Amino acid sequence: MTKNSSNIMALSPNTSNKRETVCIFGTGDFGRALGLKMIQSGYPVVFGSRSTQTSSLIPKDAEVLSHAEAAQKAAIIIIALQRQHYNFLIPLAEVLHGKVLVDVSNNLKINQYPESNAEYLSQLLPGARVVKAFNTVSAWALQSGTLDASRQVFVCGDDMEAKQMVMDIVRAVGLTPLDKGSLLAAQEIENYPLQLFPMWKFPIFLSLGLTAFFFFYCLALDVIYPYVYQNKDFSFFIVISIPNRICPILALILLALVYLPGVLAAIIQLYRGTKYRRFPDWLDKWMLCRKQLGLVALAFASVHVLYTLVIPIRSYVRWRISSHTISQALNNKTEPLNTTNAWLSDSYVALGILGFFFFFLLGITSLPSVSNNVNWREFRFVQSKLGYLTLILCTAHTLVYGGKWFLNLSLYKWYLPHAYMLSLIVPCIVLVIKFVLIFPCLDKPLTQIRQGWERNPKYSEQSNYIINKSAV
Amino acid sequence: MTKNSSNIMALSPNTSNKRETVCIFGTGDFGRALGLKMIQSGYPVVFGSRSTQTSSLIPKDAEVLSHAEAAQKAAIIIIALQRQHYNFLIPLAEVLHGKVLVDVSNNLKINQYPESNAEYLSQLLPGARVVKAFNTVSAWALQSGTLDASRQVFVCGDDMEAKQMVMDIVRAVGLTPLDKGSLLAAQEIENYPLQLFPMWKFPIFLSLGLTAFFFFYCLALDVIYPYVYQNKDFSFFIVISIPNRICPILALILLALVYLPGVLAAIIQLYRGTKYRRFPDWLDKWMLCRKQLGLVALAFASVHVLYTLVIPIRSYVRWRISSHTISQALNNKTEPLNTTNAWLSDSYVALGILGFFFFFLLGITSLPSVSNNVNWREFRFVQSKLGYLTLILCTAHTLVYGGKWFLNLSLYKWYLPHAYMLSLIVPCIVLVIKFVLIFPCLDKPLTQIRQGWERNPKYSEQSNYIINKSAV
Amino acid sequence: MTKNSSNIMALSPNTSNKRETVCIFGTGDFGRALGLKMIQSGYPVVFGSRSTQTSSLIPKDAEVLSHAEAAQKAAIIIIALQRQHYNFLIPLAEVLHGKVLVDVSNNLKINQYPESNAEYLSQLLPGARVVKAFNTVSAWALQSGTLDASRQVFVCGDDMEAKQMVMDIVRAVGLTPLDKGSLLAAQEIENYPLQLFPMWKFPIFLSLGLTAFFFFYCLALDVIYPYVYQNKDFSFFIVISIPNRICPILALILLALVYLPGVLAAIIQLYRGTKYRRFPDWLDKWMLCRKQLGLVALAFASVHVLYTLVIPIRSYVRWRISSHTISQALNNKTEPLNTTNAWLSDSYVALGILGFFFFFLLGITSLPSVSNNVNWREFRFVQSKLGYLTLILCTAHTLVYGGKWFLNLSLYKWYLPHAYMLSLIVPCIVLVIKFVLIFPCLDKPLTQIRQGWERNPKYSEQSNYIINKSAV
Repeated sequence: MTKNSSNIMALSPNTSNKRETVCIFGTGDFGRALGLKMIQSGYPVVFGSRSTQTSSLIPKDAEVLSHAEAAQKAAIIIIALQRQHYNFLIPLAEVLHGKVLVDVSNNLKINQYPESNAEYLSQLLPGARVVKAFNTVSAWALQSGTLDASRQVFVCGDDMEAKQMVMDIVRAVGLTPLDKGSLLAAQEIENYPLQLFPMWKFPIFLSLGLTAFFFFYCLALDVIYPYVYQNKDFSFFIVISIPNRICPILALILLALVYLPGVLAAIIQLYRGTKYRRFPDWLDKWMLCRKQLGLVALAFASVHVLYTLVIPIRSYVRWRISSHTISQALNNKTEPLNTTNAWLSDSYVALGILGFFFFFLLGITSLPSVSNNVNWREFRFVQSKLGYLTLILCTAHTLVYGGKWFLNLSLYKWYLPHAYMLSLIVPCIVLVIKFVLIFPCLDKPLTQIRQGWERNPKYSEQSNYIINKSAV
Repeated sequence: MTKNSSNIMALSPNTSNKRETVCIFGTGDFGRALGLKMIQSGYPVVFGSRSTQTSSLIPKDAEVLSHAEAAQKAAIIIIALQRQHYNFLIPLAEVLHGKVLVDVSNNLKINQYPESNAEYLSQLLPGARVVKAFNTVSAWALQSGTLDASRQVFVCGDDMEAKQMVMDIVRAVGLTPLDKGSLLAAQEIENYPLQLFPMWKFPIFLSLGLTAFFFFYCLALDVIYPYVYQNKDFSFFIVISIPNRICPILALILLALVYLPGVLAAIIQLYRGTKYRRFPDWLDKWMLCRKQLGLVALAFASVHVLYTLVIPIRSYVRWRISSHTISQALNNKTEPLNTTNAWLSDSYVALGILGFFFFFLLGITSLPSVSNNVNWREFRFVQSKLGYLTLILCTAHTLVYGGKWFLNLSLYKWYLPHAYMLSLIVPCIVLVIKFVLIFPCLDKPLTQIRQGWERNPKYSEQSNYIINKSAV
Repeated sequence: MTKNSSNIMALSPNTSNKRETVCIFGTGDFGRALGLKMIQSGYPVVFGSRSTQTSSLIPKDAEVLSHAEAAQKAAIIIIALQRQHYNFLIPLAEVLHGKVLVDVSNNLKINQYPESNAEYLSQLLPGARVVKAFNTVSAWALQSGTLDASRQVFVCGDDMEAKQMVMDIVRAVGLTPLDKGSLLAAQEIENYPLQLFPMWKFPIFLSLGLTAFFFFYCLALDVIYPYVYQNKDFSFFIVISIPNRICPILALILLALVYLPGVLAAIIQLYRGTKYRRFPDWLDKWMLCRKQLGLVALAFASVHVLYTLVIPIRSYVRWRISSHTISQALNNKTEPLNTTNAWLSDSYVALGILGFFFFFLLGITSLPSVSNNVNWREFRFVQSKLGYLTLILCTAHTLVYGGKWFLNLSLYKWYLPHAYMLSLIVPCIVLVIKFVLIFPCLDKPLTQIRQGWERNPKYSEQSNYIINKSAV
């Protein structure tokens, strides 16, 4: 930045701390809230409005002028209008030439228009320097001052200097600007505030579905079966016992589903002999929500841990243990210590603890601030090595837990397998395939393919330009 | 940046990696530590000092000259002096004209002077380009190299280029610059290192006060009462039983206090018929420390969980259960399973687990790196929907826990209610008001008011410019 | 940036959204992956290759030309070649003059060459503007689109404008650029992806060594001793009982080792009477990995908590309690409540819970996003005050746990002390030294020394320039 340019723009006056006047087009709720905030931060604010009568709602320190007059007073104009009214600005094109126009608008639906509002504004007024900003904060948040959530304001624009000026305002009102690059990013920025956990939808619906299935399965086997055949009322199992059966089952299945797409992708690549062809759409989507699947699995595992640890506090469990002790005392016999039982019980618990510990570590490394501080080599080490270790430990935990029941067919109620056996199917498949894939005869070609080698280069010629567009 | 400007400043020499000379005014502890760090990072350093004798403490590779001579050698001058000595710089105004002056000073008290030190420096030397930086790191941290804590260095200044030059030095010595905008931000930056958890003071003192009250309340009812009337020594209850009564009570009250200001604000807005009037001061402050209140509540809830889970390990509990079992065995009777009891005990435990789980989720989303990655819609969904779900679950947990005792007056010692009943007052008030507020006849006008509608626009005219200044 | 400069560079075309052409030298795996990603982001891409035949692997929309022709078409050239082939670029020096060259290369070993690849490139082609970027992402990550890990791309370079252009490309392909300053930072950036938790190696190997030692120690005392002398088979202790003895021991020792270097440094500074002399190398290294030591200690403490909480679920423990109850019932006697025991058992558990709670708080504040949001005063308060409180609570927890065994020599198997006694040595040493150091007669000179005062200024003259180089 030469002296010359800073004289023209008077961006950062060296000798005085007076802020530059900012103009706001539109006196709606958001325009007023932003204007008030800027006045409080020391900016002179002028509103551009169709009616120049000072409305009672407009902050007192602000001037209200016609659009053209207001625009002439400032280098930066905030366009707090709906996209439908943008064409009202066309007659002002001359006044707005060279000015910094800040598009703060949002849409009602994701991808509502073919181009973003900011790009549309830029097309209407080619002489203006359009910057997208402020659309991620709400009038309510600006006014109430309770900016607990993200203070980040995404900023994008094609003009570096205009962007810097807007980012300075963002900082001045107590928010944090984040440069998202050129105006092409506006579409993404406009879609951002409309999202409601888009990546979490599939994992959450999947787990709700599985939860419902396993709930009725366990209800039938653990509550209805004893009620029908033994006339025992175990309805209170619904509260803790059955949830504590569903949680570990779901945790294990979801954890296995995190690693299943990886081994499927490896099989596909081995079969095709190239990595330069797009995976099927469902596999792509699945791979992109693995982190969320894993975190939902961790949530189920955590609840399982809590449910398990309260077992000795439960009134039913205390009654059962006490009854057992009393009946032994009354029969005047003491059982000797069963070492095999002690081994099994302790192993099963220890495997679960270690599995949960590594699972929790995986969860911590997926926190944004932690994963930003590890490099790829470290991230893959944690997610791959530690992830498989977790899967192995949790699968072993389940296997040891049910060890004795597997072969005892008389324990199968209504000839149905126990619920935990169903939970073992997916993890065992994943572990077996993974075990096969690490044999050198498969691992070597796979590594080559992933480094860019092709078994049949001819074939890929037609298809290589359609590789995976869903990546960003 | 044109070629022209980069020739003048030689900011980034393309052909050689030699760093620009940096001048440091002041040979105190901080100046020397910073100088040494810069020498290690490849910068030639020259010190400006009243006495030009090379002190033994100054790094050997650094030159020591008079202030004027030193200043001429460098484009950047770090002013490592106390604010009281800034007027010594006035005679050097000519030499310092156009130079980048880096103000690294701190004060002893928050808002000690009317203007920040950096702005004061800028007023004394209007021709210099003042940048505030480095005040958040200490000489000790620079020297010991143990920069475990924040590596962030806040930088502000009115001259973009000067700021860039300083930010390059910050990066070169291994720290992370954070642009805070124009020199107006200097006041905030200078106050920053003097703070000691300002937002946490109210929640922590409040919870200490409540803890003390409930401790003596429980002590009277659970230890002194049985000692006086039954001559039993339960003094060891002080260690676990009473803390495990205080923790859940405080967790529930503090959690309810997080949501109370929100419903109070809604009532005030409904009553006034506008959102354009400032809330009372106490309500503003209360709303700003809700996050901290919630996290303190979560801490109490976590300790409660741990205290509860160790119950079966406690020697007193083992003795009580064992005594009960033995007395049953000796009387030769076995109790049948009480299904109602099993239902109540399991429900109470399950509600607590689910409440704690959602509470923990809320806590995770308040981590800075997580809340920066959700948009407003998602943040409000989590904090509002999940928050109320947590409050409902925890209140239900407490209600079910004490269910049987409520109506049994004979259990009231000294006619005082049990402590947990006191804890239910605030949450029940919040939940009842919230329940009333979601009726359409109240929800509709409230939504309109929050979107900017006013019942009585005249009234607000006098007051709208004083809305909430405490926001930033 | 003046209009002039932006005309020349056409960096951000205001009137159209067409992206600038980017040239890629090298058609290897990484070059192709990056090229495809750029094409998908809207950049025209031209490859420079020795053979200008369109290979089947190159994305269809990309042109392939000779190096010179390709370079002429673009302002930015990505050098996707190995360092060994950089000298092939020398004949192109004229064409590459003034162009932005992006060095994306990595080495196979840390510090493989005396200078970084990017600096080497800059020396070969002094007329080009070299920027280091993209080396932290892999071809696989770009192609599979599963950028779960860090999206951060470190960028450094001496030319500000060139850096901005590259950072815009980084943003456009969906990654986050992080400016690391001048080209001198390239060495660090090139070493970054080769690291595998370098700071964690010492803590992890140390804890593995200590784990092995204590495992065999406990195995001898708890399993082999009763097998030899009492012929009892407690081999299942290996699964939970012994790990649950090792974990707290290691947690306590490692936590004490976090605070030991601090008190050692204080002693050294007091002895030398100055802070301007370098600490021994081992002490420097030790101080730099304190955070990692503390987190490993926290991991052991967490596993200890889980192992402890499952105690009542273990089949062995249930058998032991039940046997004890039955034998009492059969002998027709009931033990009265032992208040001393209740006090001891409750205190020991409560101290452990509080210690773990503060330890966990310490762990949370070491999350990058949390520690970036506290200032130095707050960080030192938490790490020093809360840290010592944690150490005191955990040491007291261990002391109360073993209280009764200390003096009872008959309990010493094979005349060896119980394992937990060994764990108390380091923490007690640290606490005693710290206690001595807070006496005013030592605290006052230490504070002065840390503020820069010297007892014997002469002495430091020879040594002050070698202070602590390992800081960055």
